[in-house]
Amino acid sequence: MGASTFLRACLLCLVLSCHAYKYKTYFTRQRVDHFSFANQDTFLQRFLINDDHWDSNGGPIFFYAGNEGDITLFAENTGFMWDIAAEFRALLVFGEHRYYGVSEPYGNKSLTTPKYSGYLTSEQALADYVDLVSYLRFVIEELKPVLYMSLEGLMEGCWPPGSASSTLTSAIAASAPVRQFTDFTPCDKFGQKVTEDFAKASEACVEVIRKSWAAIDAVTAKEDGMAWLSKTWNLCKPLKDKGEVEAMKGYLMDTWTNLAMVDYPYPANFLAPLPAYPIEVVCSHLTEPGREGKALLEELFEGVTVYFNYTGQSKCLDYTEEADARLDDRGWSFQSCTEMVMPFCYDGVKDFFEPAPWDFQEVVANCRKTWGVTPRAYMAPLMYGGWTFNAASNIVFSNGLLDPWSTGGVLWNVSDSVVAVIIPEGAHHLDLRSANPADPPSVVEARRVEKAHITKWIEQFKQMQGAG
Amino acid sequence: MGASTFLRACLLCLVLSCHAYKYKTYFTRQRVDHFSFANQDTFLQRFLINDDHWDSNGGPIFFYAGNEGDITLFAENTGFMWDIAAEFRALLVFGEHRYYGVSEPYGNKSLTTPKYSGYLTSEQALADYVDLVSYLRFVIEELKPVLYMSLEGLMEGCWPPGSASSTLTSAIAASAPVRQFTDFTPCDKFGQKVTEDFAKASEACVEVIRKSWAAIDAVTAKEDGMAWLSKTWNLCKPLKDKGEVEAMKGYLMDTWTNLAMVDYPYPANFLAPLPAYPIEVVCSHLTEPGREGKALLEELFEGVTVYFNYTGQSKCLDYTEEADARLDDRGWSFQSCTEMVMPFCYDGVKDFFEPAPWDFQEVVANCRKTWGVTPRAYMAPLMYGGWTFNAASNIVFSNGLLDPWSTGGVLWNVSDSVVAVIIPEGAHHLDLRSANPADPPSVVEARRVEKAHITKWIEQFKQMQGAG
Repeated sequence: MGASTFLRACLLCLVLSCHAYKYKTYFTRQRVDHFSFANQDTFLQRFLINDDHWDSNGGPIFFYAGNEGDITLFAENTGFMWDIAAEFRALLVFGEHRYYGVSEPYGNKSLTTPKYSGYLTSEQALADYVDLVSYLRFVIEELKPVLYMSLEGLMEGCWPPGSASSTLTSAIAASAPVRQFTDFTPCDKFGQKVTEDFAKASEACVEVIRKSWAAIDAVTAKEDGMAWLSKTWNLCKPLKDKGEVEAMKGYLMDTWTNLAMVDYPYPANFLAPLPAYPIEVVCSHLTEPGREGKALLEELFEGVTVYFNYTGQSKCLDYTEEADARLDDRGWSFQSCTEMVMPFCYDGVKDFFEPAPWDFQEVVANCRKTWGVTPRAYMAPLMYGGWTFNAASNIVFSNGLLDPWSTGGVLWNVSDSVVAVIIPEGAHHLDLRSANPADPPSVVEARRVEKAHITKWIEQFKQMQGAG
Repeated sequence: MGASTFLRACLLCLVLSCHAYKYKTYFTRQRVDHFSFANQDTFLQRFLINDDHWDSNGGPIFFYAGNEGDITLFAENTGFMWDIAAEFRALLVFGEHRYYGVSEPYGNKSLTTPKYSGYLTSEQALADYVDLVSYLRFVIEELKPVLYMSLEGLMEGCWPPGSASSTLTSAIAASAPVRQFTDFTPCDKFGQKVTEDFAKASEACVEVIRKSWAAIDAVTAKEDGMAWLSKTWNLCKPLKDKGEVEAMKGYLMDTWTNLAMVDYPYPANFLAPLPAYPIEVVCSHLTEPGREGKALLEELFEGVTVYFNYTGQSKCLDYTEEADARLDDRGWSFQSCTEMVMPFCYDGVKDFFEPAPWDFQEVVANCRKTWGVTPRAYMAPLMYGGWTFNAASNIVFSNGLLDPWSTGGVLWNVSDSVVAVIIPEGAHHLDLRSANPADPPSVVEARRVEKAHITKWIEQFKQMQGAG
């Protein structure tokens, strides 16, 4: 569920705006393996550029380190960068993450076997970005400060290793769950934060959802129960077996999680269009936790409807709904099976989800079977640190406290130059979205702080250039 | 010549002392490829430990990041670490560099083809060290400050990437030629520094050596010239063709370079035993640059004799002399052909060497032929920075100004925590050798500064531990 939820988190960024952002598309040749010489293959990495506002005589480069999907989606949906480009006279560059979009090292073989898929790691992706920015700086022929900006970020947007730091001078790491790894954040915090968001709307709402899992099991276990639920919930594909019931429950888990991530203060259009503060709207339908069985599920469906059919345009509920074709969740599945091992667990008591422990051995077995790889639970903290951030500099970690991913984020100032920006009323990556009249003061302030840091970083860079 | 000279530089550390340093030998399992999942092989890395003086309740770890050779050689010849272990109550750990000593990932196949040899890179080696130290810290069960110490260092001992920095808190990078890469230091500086060291003894000495290359060519081009030189210079293997004459000249280039590196103020025993200030002794024989041909070469031989036969024990001059069996110069040859591309050139005017331009295309052709790899001239600066060190922290770069490698070193303070220690009277890594009564004040002061930084780093770490 973690991976799926995470993918959804990215999807949320996709349909943000109708701005007609314009960019030019380029490709750069990258090594498949930056760190060794056993495989000397190369591939073409896509990147997008907008120089409408760029002062080519010293303006900064704002570089977006692509996440797990088609870079055009992210370029079109990172309003903050476009909003501030003119003010900073910045060049906007969006680099596509290897193995996503059209930047597939081995075409349609890329995810078939470890021989090809094995180079889908954050270290290799970061090295692509370092190479790309170095190349751009070489082309531009003058050193310009480079601001390293990431939406989802994960490792890519969090704390670039020394290599990256030398090329990429600073970073805004928004909603980056850099401590969502083994032994850093307890696996139950994520689900608890989702639940907490709903509890702010009402305790009754939480209770309805908490009871729903058993109700679904009980109803679908009875004769005609699956048919009843399929009809009552207007499912596109009627439930036929236990596996499909589990898939349906997985869809609900994602629905509640996604709502927590996108609980924005204004209407937004993501996977499905949503009203402002969608959790409140959902919970306005989930008011009677005293109900049982079918009655409870009828009530639940009214809440679910807010998510899947707020506009009334959806003909049916498709619980198998795939992520946008431009997002390759198979790539993320591979990453979850190798480096991005993020433990999630639920107990149904402190959270409202169906109880599910984190079983790493089961994860390992599944990963070996699916991808032919053995997960390295401690790889990310080993590679990027995590004990302390004392070697890092010039990073703003921003987190909205409504966002369940904030439980794995950096919420404290590490040093003068590695600081946390907290947005109490913020959901996932609210600060990186375009400015909106309904923005709460905390996100307006967050963007002001981020811009102040950007200004400072550019100033520092220029001083260093002058001194060097 | 660069690679060869560099290897010799390492050899110089080997015979430093007769201290009976004691250590225990261990092995840890390492991934062949830390950054990808295409190759999931593992191998055993050797490391050595001494805990005689260690305060296991909070004492620091002094970690030596092995360079290109058998780690036992370096453990036995890094007197500074052994000298200060008691004062800091430190654990001494010496990690062997992959592909050297007994830490060969694929046994005797390790250097046969890129499939096996390709993982011999500084990034992979650094990741080994990070893994090893993480493992040790896990075993020790308490976080202790880790001081990262390197003798030769190169990338390994210079500026560890973010990953390393988080595990390895600080570094002494002694005689580390981190700017000896393309576009950083002009290729002729190294040879000029060697020449300068000899010019301090006498200009006549420089002139004799400068004239010697043409004299060798002229003499050996004549009938019986090779035989004459072989006899006069007491060569173990008589010269028979032009190729052997070139090899003989290569030996001389290494001899002058090595003398510049080991121009220590006290007698030392390296590849061959040498007197204090060996360049002065050599130059005391090279006083008549007015000579020509055979007369010049007879004079030159008296200087060469100081290097190859100071004790009078050598039966003949072996210009094919291999490096110590415990140093694998094939590994360094591979590294020079991949990541460690260090341009060297000579013009015979500003230096006293035979003119030889840096011809990268020729290097590429040879590397493809020998190793099946294409050198990446910009890989090291790309991976580790080099434009600035602004992302680095807690590093002391030390350089002796007699050392030709100092021309590729960091000779200026980068920031409060990345500082340069200059030892005007110091040859190669003098500061990392055991204290000696003949040490010049500048190296005594260098060691004092280094120890002060170590003390500060440990203090910082403990404060951070306390705060965390």
